[in-house]
Amino acid sequence: MREHHNTDYGRLIVQGADRPGIVSSVSGVLTEQGANIVSLDQYSTDPSGGRFFQRTVFHLEGLSARFDQLKAALDQKLTHELGLEFRLVEAKRRKRAAIFVSKADHCLLDLLWRVQRDEIAMTVPMVVSNHPDLGDAARQFGIPYFYIPVNKNNKTEAEKEQLNLLKGNVDLVILARYMQILSGEFLDEVGVPVINIHHSFLPAFMGAGPYQRAKERGVKLVGATAHYVTEDLDEGPIIEQDVIRVSHRDTVEDLQRKGADVERLVLARAVTWHCDDRVIRDGNTTVVF
Amino acid sequence: MREHHNTDYGRLIVQGADRPGIVSSVSGVLTEQGANIVSLDQYSTDPSGGRFFQRTVFHLEGLSARFDQLKAALDQKLTHELGLEFRLVEAKRRKRAAIFVSKADHCLLDLLWRVQRDEIAMTVPMVVSNHPDLGDAARQFGIPYFYIPVNKNNKTEAEKEQLNLLKGNVDLVILARYMQILSGEFLDEVGVPVINIHHSFLPAFMGAGPYQRAKERGVKLVGATAHYVTEDLDEGPIIEQDVIRVSHRDTVEDLQRKGADVERLVLARAVTWHCDDRVIRDGNTTVVF
Amino acid sequence: MREHHNTDYGRLIVQGADRPGIVSSVSGVLTEQGANIVSLDQYSTDPSGGRFFQRTVFHLEGLSARFDQLKAALDQKLTHELGLEFRLVEAKRRKRAAIFVSKADHCLLDLLWRVQRDEIAMTVPMVVSNHPDLGDAARQFGIPYFYIPVNKNNKTEAEKEQLNLLKGNVDLVILARYMQILSGEFLDEVGVPVINIHHSFLPAFMGAGPYQRAKERGVKLVGATAHYVTEDLDEGPIIEQDVIRVSHRDTVEDLQRKGADVERLVLARAVTWHCDDRVIRDGNTTVVF
Amino acid sequence: MREHHNTDYGRLIVQGADRPGIVSSVSGVLTEQGANIVSLDQYSTDPSGGRFFQRTVFHLEGLSARFDQLKAALDQKLTHELGLEFRLVEAKRRKRAAIFVSKADHCLLDLLWRVQRDEIAMTVPMVVSNHPDLGDAARQFGIPYFYIPVNKNNKTEAEKEQLNLLKGNVDLVILARYMQILSGEFLDEVGVPVINIHHSFLPAFMGAGPYQRAKERGVKLVGATAHYVTEDLDEGPIIEQDVIRVSHRDTVEDLQRKGADVERLVLARAVTWHCDDRVIRDGNTTVVF
Repeated sequence: MREHHNTDYGRLIVQGADRPGIVSSVSGVLTEQGANIVSLDQYSTDPSGGRFFQRTVFHLEGLSARFDQLKAALDQKLTHELGLEFRLVEAKRRKRAAIFVSKADHCLLDLLWRVQRDEIAMTVPMVVSNHPDLGDAARQFGIPYFYIPVNKNNKTEAEKEQLNLLKGNVDLVILARYMQILSGEFLDEVGVPVINIHHSFLPAFMGAGPYQRAKERGVKLVGATAHYVTEDLDEGPIIEQDVIRVSHRDTVEDLQRKGADVERLVLARAVTWHCDDRVIRDGNTTVVF
Repeated sequence: MREHHNTDYGRLIVQGADRPGIVSSVSGVLTEQGANIVSLDQYSTDPSGGRFFQRTVFHLEGLSARFDQLKAALDQKLTHELGLEFRLVEAKRRKRAAIFVSKADHCLLDLLWRVQRDEIAMTVPMVVSNHPDLGDAARQFGIPYFYIPVNKNNKTEAEKEQLNLLKGNVDLVILARYMQILSGEFLDEVGVPVINIHHSFLPAFMGAGPYQRAKERGVKLVGATAHYVTEDLDEGPIIEQDVIRVSHRDTVEDLQRKGADVERLVLARAVTWHCDDRVIRDGNTTVVF
Repeated sequence: MREHHNTDYGRLIVQGADRPGIVSSVSGVLTEQGANIVSLDQYSTDPSGGRFFQRTVFHLEGLSARFDQLKAALDQKLTHELGLEFRLVEAKRRKRAAIFVSKADHCLLDLLWRVQRDEIAMTVPMVVSNHPDLGDAARQFGIPYFYIPVNKNNKTEAEKEQLNLLKGNVDLVILARYMQILSGEFLDEVGVPVINIHHSFLPAFMGAGPYQRAKERGVKLVGATAHYVTEDLDEGPIIEQDVIRVSHRDTVEDLQRKGADVERLVLARAVTWHCDDRVIRDGNTTVVF
Repeated sequence: MREHHNTDYGRLIVQGADRPGIVSSVSGVLTEQGANIVSLDQYSTDPSGGRFFQRTVFHLEGLSARFDQLKAALDQKLTHELGLEFRLVEAKRRKRAAIFVSKADHCLLDLLWRVQRDEIAMTVPMVVSNHPDLGDAARQFGIPYFYIPVNKNNKTEAEKEQLNLLKGNVDLVILARYMQILSGEFLDEVGVPVINIHHSFLPAFMGAGPYQRAKERGVKLVGATAHYVTEDLDEGPIIEQDVIRVSHRDTVEDLQRKGADVERLVLARAVTWHCDDRVIRDGNTTVVF
């Protein structure tokens, strides 16, 4: 059974400076509160002086009713005594995600179809686009589609409009082949994680026309990278990557088509893991449990 | 740094019937004894009434000297109070493995080369074979080679001779393309895990000439499976699997050659994980942390 | 550019007993008729006494008008002089495919998305099902959906009804998770190739509940196989296969979900190649150019 | 059977500007000379005005004795009439390769094992190194090892010494983790193809410490690229690439170790294909048949 189908499952994500006894303290609090640990992943970059990460899934009868009390107990132990950060979530609370798109539909359709099958612990209250093209695709899944044109003159205004739509309504923004660069101000304001998908090659082909240039050097693999968006474009912490094999027979158009197949799978995996609270950011890297 | 290079690292493997509070109890004992948890993986098949598995790596200053005391404390808590099984090992103790071969050298050479680079936490006190062919290969790595011919008349005797060599000298037997079936008696007597590697196909082609028959049906993937040996030939719990892509241009000989490339990688991964105590057997399945 | 977007591209598929000079004869006829070879793949199982296969894509100005003349010239040379079989097709003629489904939508939707984007050189004049569930999914793409219930009492009749729908209207039948076994009579009557997709494991788990049994043995890979249907269920010539990695953390439901992701990719590739005339059947095997 | 085991097999590689009738002309000459085509791969970047590539394997009784006559006939037709370049080789003639190494042995040993098993149609008359470390490894396979120290003061001289060793003795140079940059003068003088292997990431991490920087961004795949060496370091036409999955648990050292496993497989495939004349260079790209 997927975790989010169980009303009494909770997740506790802990991170901070490593020191002896954290696992013991965390599990001690959970046990005292009557929770039973279902799974626990822990990782430390270095036991002396490193960074500590832990994801714990637990079962607690009547979790909703006892949530605040559990949170207070964890706060006392983890924040005040041990100086750690933690997040406590009920597994049944699906993340609310806005999906940003432009004209390409492959990532959007794949996500919406998986949400419809309840494969991803996510709801999609809105699709936002700088083009009108994918309105039917979104609405056919019963999802509102907001068309906000963006050009170099109205970008600040357009982003303000986007932020108004998002504010308080979403826990996540997914850039599903959204072909506009978000400003630093937008990223500061949005207040929720932003996940992007983009093509990747070994080696990278920077700048314009990467598929054309990959073709010209005879690359044998095309890939995709899903990452959290930071102000350094295409440079944020990586969540997931994958590749597909190509050959000299593939035209530039074929490379793009095969790239699209990888993009939708990689984005779907990254979003699924994020919504299951499996991904912990640590500076510019990630721990994926 | 690999775990086995650190003299103060230990590993604790726990398994048994799940019940509330195990993680907390285990980490409590470790903390009380002064150990710091470096990494912890835990998995439960079902939090109510399921099977519980945990692998913990910890650091404890002066581990060798305090090993017996720690073991006694764990025995008290885990065996007597909680009814669980556990194994406690020092990471620096490499597993001692006998490698059994016949005529094919690809798996043997790959393992010996990795051991020489200290990639696998293993020593190889002996290579045992039913053919003389690979003696030079083994001895070039400074490893004794014992040639024990096996035929249908002397099988019982030959296995007795093998058991005499192994008894007390090894923690693991690796069948690296050893083309004889070990008897149930041998497996009962040997007293250490036995890992085997064999080719695999989707779907399987049972019986003789599998590569020929795979070719005749146009298979597009050939693979390999590493597993613990049980009395059901080629049917024990699976440790690792992988595949490689083939085409109609590949002859039966090419399929075997590509299959060999997968075999050596899959076997090396399985053995590495086993020697790092990452693989927990549970009936006919495995948990690989 | 995809081949089927070019109105003057043709494909010539030749197969038969190998003998000296076939490539030369075939290319001679094409050149005499004014065609320019765009790509040519040839393969022979054994140059003396083996089977010969060739796929040639060519450009011929005004192909449609000159099709019959070219076909007659090839017939003279290939059939009568060299005793070979051949197929001549215009690349712009998309294959007409009936898609058979039951209740699972993943393969159906993936195919229809790709057809909508013109990624596959195929049209879908009908979806046929033994359940009513996927009617909306098909009709949303503007495709007629025919619901023909099948049970053990009406199977012969139901297949007759299916054959009536297909007769003359399709070039291909795709079983996209159609959970009924087609009778030998149906396969004899249908007169077009039938492609099926099914899950695959290394090793195979025959019979009921394969995912459950794969889980119980700790498999690390689940896969899918697309093949032409013959009277031996799940035993016809293989077109394409692929696998995805799984672990002990995956429940039986997770294995099925991951299996579904592989199934739709493998089926899409197999159908794309079939529609591009890249797959040549040879007894129970295939040559995929 | 591998092609190079058959004494009467030849290979003909043709490339040049595409024009109607090339395939027909080539196969016409072969047929006239009594050769039977075993396999033929052809590819054209664009049938009008593109570049044409063809690899043909043929069987000709008594090939050695008739080699010159066949070559003259091809020269007349291909060079003089059609303005194409061609190479004609006897499959039984193994390529002679010098392997350049520094201190890492993984690529060297993998190649030598495969040559010893006759998996690659290659002989290795020498191993050349700027360090003494791998002398035993090479000599244990019976191969001369030439230690030529290189530093910034003696580089010109050292390359001259290397060129003296190579001149006339090899058909190929393989850089199997040779950690010196070859000068433009060396590449101009050497007169044979040079194949290099290097690590690759998605995205690329240029400059020093790529594994460290890949780790810091949380990459999930590490890979390797085999390519022909040109004066643009690490920028020549790509022959083969592959990747392996990694996670946050992998240390920088683990990434390097896994990278090494990919490097040796990718280099072995690239060299095997080169020695089978499957790789055709075309400017900065390749066609791999």
